[in-house]
Amino acid sequence: MSKYQHIQDACYKANMQLPELNLVLFTFGNVSVADRALGVFAIKPSGVPYKDLTPEKMVIVDFDGNIISGDLRPSSDTKTHAVLYKVWDKIGAIVHTHSTYATAWAQAQRDIPIFGTTHADHNTVDIPCAPPMSDDMIKGNYEYETGYQIINCFRERKLSYEEVEMILVGNHAPFAWGKNGDKAVYNAAVLEEVARMAYLTEQINPKAPRLKDALIEKHWQRKHGKDAYYGQ
Amino acid sequence: MSKYQHIQDACYKANMQLPELNLVLFTFGNVSVADRALGVFAIKPSGVPYKDLTPEKMVIVDFDGNIISGDLRPSSDTKTHAVLYKVWDKIGAIVHTHSTYATAWAQAQRDIPIFGTTHADHNTVDIPCAPPMSDDMIKGNYEYETGYQIINCFRERKLSYEEVEMILVGNHAPFAWGKNGDKAVYNAAVLEEVARMAYLTEQINPKAPRLKDALIEKHWQRKHGKDAYYGQ
Amino acid sequence: MSKYQHIQDACYKANMQLPELNLVLFTFGNVSVADRALGVFAIKPSGVPYKDLTPEKMVIVDFDGNIISGDLRPSSDTKTHAVLYKVWDKIGAIVHTHSTYATAWAQAQRDIPIFGTTHADHNTVDIPCAPPMSDDMIKGNYEYETGYQIINCFRERKLSYEEVEMILVGNHAPFAWGKNGDKAVYNAAVLEEVARMAYLTEQINPKAPRLKDALIEKHWQRKHGKDAYYGQ
Amino acid sequence: MSKYQHIQDACYKANMQLPELNLVLFTFGNVSVADRALGVFAIKPSGVPYKDLTPEKMVIVDFDGNIISGDLRPSSDTKTHAVLYKVWDKIGAIVHTHSTYATAWAQAQRDIPIFGTTHADHNTVDIPCAPPMSDDMIKGNYEYETGYQIINCFRERKLSYEEVEMILVGNHAPFAWGKNGDKAVYNAAVLEEVARMAYLTEQINPKAPRLKDALIEKHWQRKHGKDAYYGQ
Repeated sequence: MSKYQHIQDACYKANMQLPELNLVLFTFGNVSVADRALGVFAIKPSGVPYKDLTPEKMVIVDFDGNIISGDLRPSSDTKTHAVLYKVWDKIGAIVHTHSTYATAWAQAQRDIPIFGTTHADHNTVDIPCAPPMSDDMIKGNYEYETGYQIINCFRERKLSYEEVEMILVGNHAPFAWGKNGDKAVYNAAVLEEVARMAYLTEQINPKAPRLKDALIEKHWQRKHGKDAYYGQ
Repeated sequence: MSKYQHIQDACYKANMQLPELNLVLFTFGNVSVADRALGVFAIKPSGVPYKDLTPEKMVIVDFDGNIISGDLRPSSDTKTHAVLYKVWDKIGAIVHTHSTYATAWAQAQRDIPIFGTTHADHNTVDIPCAPPMSDDMIKGNYEYETGYQIINCFRERKLSYEEVEMILVGNHAPFAWGKNGDKAVYNAAVLEEVARMAYLTEQINPKAPRLKDALIEKHWQRKHGKDAYYGQ
Repeated sequence: MSKYQHIQDACYKANMQLPELNLVLFTFGNVSVADRALGVFAIKPSGVPYKDLTPEKMVIVDFDGNIISGDLRPSSDTKTHAVLYKVWDKIGAIVHTHSTYATAWAQAQRDIPIFGTTHADHNTVDIPCAPPMSDDMIKGNYEYETGYQIINCFRERKLSYEEVEMILVGNHAPFAWGKNGDKAVYNAAVLEEVARMAYLTEQINPKAPRLKDALIEKHWQRKHGKDAYYGQ
Repeated sequence: MSKYQHIQDACYKANMQLPELNLVLFTFGNVSVADRALGVFAIKPSGVPYKDLTPEKMVIVDFDGNIISGDLRPSSDTKTHAVLYKVWDKIGAIVHTHSTYATAWAQAQRDIPIFGTTHADHNTVDIPCAPPMSDDMIKGNYEYETGYQIINCFRERKLSYEEVEMILVGNHAPFAWGKNGDKAVYNAAVLEEVARMAYLTEQINPKAPRLKDALIEKHWQRKHGKDAYYGQ
């Protein structure tokens, strides 16, 4: 048995949740899962239909984007994953999809306003939309620079990647992450639902105000604060 | 067999209808079912995925929010349920979800206008949206105060909780109730569909008028009046 | 075997298509199927969940709305069906639903404009929305008058019920009909899809023009004209 | 075994993907698959429900629209397929649907703006909407002229049918094509999703800009350029 079997299994399982949760059409998405001790991550092979995936097909890549093990070409977004793992050292898994509502916000180049407690249960800020990349970044090492576009957006806004586990890349689509594959996929699904609710909220009331600070704080704390009382 | 088995069974069955009716993503919802004679209710444990639920896992709580029986922590919204049971003494079950369209109206802080007979078959008024709570209420006993926010909204508007079995809590999400678990879940699903239709109605005709009084009265009476002739 | 078995079977089969086609939530719909020689129709019993239906439960009613056979109470909309069968003597089946998009147009009190060939394959006119009924009609024999509201709308607009097999009743919901149960349900599903497409068309282009006459004529003739060449 | 069996099998398989991908209601769609060496294509029979299809029922037609083999009448859109095969000599399969969002754009008579990388992964231009046909074309050889309306639109805009494999026909619905049945159906599904995302993008930001040229070029090249690195 390969020494990477555990992350290949976790990566396979997480990838297979994307079509179940209606987050992908065809192969428009990928999940990776890292082993920090080994300094590598497993990622979906590029362009392979979900129904043809097996754990063994997950490609092993290091945090510089070098292929360590695997017969297939990894996702074309692999370098974006690598950069995020390298710079943000507590991430255990990353999800990229083109889920419909989150992508529509990315195409609209707008942050998703925090309108309600569904959002505040997961974030205390508007979900950031990084601006589209400069032409130089696009023409250079594109996927690598996409990772830095995400990281720079967080730096400029003084956001913590451990608190805000999702972002939109302008004109492109969402990325989400978390401590493991299940959490990262969960975040990707939450982002899609929050994006859908925010879209509907503005349609119903174009002047809908942002959620008040006391509610943002309360909902965040009851799920994530030191006295959190959500869950078991 | 536990003396609470009957409400645990009913509560389990009602909770399992939420994902079937597409009213919840992950664990974003909960149902409770009360036994008035015993003075307690069974409620979903907090944060446990629906697929992992069993009747035995339903937690038994009294109308002051004290845990009477159960190994798991009850829903974080338990005190809201407790307050509603305590003050409104003919409720047999309560449902809380973050269903998409109803939540969007709650985030938009708007009552759902009564536009058609689908609505009038179940209510004679716009579905109320309680205003977001004051900062003091939020920072205090939040879930307990959420219950009072609902009750106060009904008092101020002179609504009967036996006639209007649903509400939106501003910036949060819907609550529905009924004489038993099936009816409460039914109401939660009706609310979601009425919310969706009202949203579409305003998109199609921003000046769509409220339903005329004669139709409101007729549809309510034929389903709920003393000479009702709907159903068996 | 009952002499009504054939229409009970057809009625049961047609009713069961409604949830399959996502045209109903709970019991918000009903289908009837007539036998013109016997002067009766079979109709869904009121408020009985689809999963509990059997052919034997379909109630037999004559064209004046009298129950001829059956242990259950027929649909609360039975008199509307009876009037339509009595006045429009070539209808073989009727469907009433509260399908989401068609109901939203009915609540918006607007005809559905003919925007494309999907519509013209089935109708040459905007799908009519009958105005909400007068208070006298509502307070009188409501369901009976609903039938006349539909018939009067067709008379005033000089429409043929054999060519236009669907209508919206303002503030209420759609009705569709056809020569048999399958065709009536087909029409109800087409109406829902045409309603959805028309809603989206106006969102994408608020000034979208009506379909040009030549295309209306062409698409209608190729499916329904004397030289029709659609189908087998 | 018929010498057409291979294209009948491929055509059957491609047609059956349409309902799976939610691209058709009832029989509102058809796929054809060509054999260039034999100079014929297999196409769905007109008006036959998908569940009743078998490979043997696919009708064999030549590029002038003459039926070569088959007991059933071919799709009423057969001549449109024939013209496209005849003029565009590298197409291997064609799909026509009335999928909801793409049809709404066609009814709105608007090109679908290129708003994001999901679009640029498949096209470098706004997806063209051919204008509605002239009355003469409609009253003449309608389906044949529909083919020329598509071809003329590409000529006028100087588009390559090998690079842009999809179009909207104004007031009608989408057509897509590709080297084989799987690719043509894939393109029809991508078009529907891109149409849905573009609709949402404009709702969220009515002033959303077109995708910048550098991103259009980058995403197209990484999937289709000479150094493409997407897929295996």
